[in-house]
Amino acid sequence: MDVEKVNAMDFGDFVAVFGNVIERCPLIAAAVWSQRPFSDVDDLDKRFCAFIDALPQSGQEGVLRCHPDLAGRELQQGTLTAESQREQSAAGLQSLSADERRRLAQLNAQYRARFGFPFVLAARLRDPAAVASELERRLHSPPAQELRTALGEVKTIGRLRLADLLRADPARL
Amino acid sequence: MDVEKVNAMDFGDFVAVFGNVIERCPLIAAAVWSQRPFSDVDDLDKRFCAFIDALPQSGQEGVLRCHPDLAGRELQQGTLTAESQREQSAAGLQSLSADERRRLAQLNAQYRARFGFPFVLAARLRDPAAVASELERRLHSPPAQELRTALGEVKTIGRLRLADLLRADPARL
Repeated sequence: MDVEKVNAMDFGDFVAVFGNVIERCPLIAAAVWSQRPFSDVDDLDKRFCAFIDALPQSGQEGVLRCHPDLAGRELQQGTLTAESQREQSAAGLQSLSADERRRLAQLNAQYRARFGFPFVLAARLRDPAAVASELERRLHSPPAQELRTALGEVKTIGRLRLADLLRADPARL
Repeated sequence: MDVEKVNAMDFGDFVAVFGNVIERCPLIAAAVWSQRPFSDVDDLDKRFCAFIDALPQSGQEGVLRCHPDLAGRELQQGTLTAESQREQSAAGLQSLSADERRRLAQLNAQYRARFGFPFVLAARLRDPAAVASELERRLHSPPAQELRTALGEVKTIGRLRLADLLRADPARL
């Protein structure tokens, strides 16, 4: 992929391609466009991360709240974004037993009640058992630490999505 | 409308109802939820405005870049958000002549090239002639002043959308 191609995009094209690097936050891609030209993919990735880091805490919580539950209602109803759909499928979350699904729903609800945002995890790097045990573990984190952990996952998801986009058919870019 | 009802919403319901108060920026509603309880509609409105004001300039430009063109391709293709669709229709932008549409498209392109974000206007308060003359006028503003003007329009649009939502059937809330 040619970073020159990215640097030549107008903001409409840029947001159309990179608008969901951070789940349901096209505002962030639209802001990152202000920082062009980018020297390479890492530079582009760093700009997304820096924008998130510079948000006030309410904004960082807002980013997390734009994420769907893992194995939640949106996966059931088919209303996930294309990226989330692929990631949750890759983690095998579409083929849970009814019991596993109930258990995750319970843990997700406890997590949301405790922290005020949904449990976010770079799911495609895990399998269903790892998702559940990670959720159980993080449920007991101190809130300030958990906010940092969750934002780290958002950044990992974003980096993987960027890599997908830049590996993709250059004609799309 | 009962503000108590708003204050009792979990973040999922809140974002589902208020997620497009700022066009295509559910992140902002999701962040504003952190500020609850709200004393009344004005308080809620002020929280949206304060979040926008606290963003770095790139973030404020990002908010603007999430807005569609007035009388642009998305209106033609029917891919506007429901709120934008209603507002552009109220301004009569759906029934322009081919000449008027071409003229606006030209002005929109000039504006985007000059400022790096689309022309944003609380359209439902205007008619097509007023939209065009306002666009011609603002095209010559100094960039820093134009950023402030455009963000003022975003806030006006948000205030009107909030008022619609809070006047709406309380059963929706």
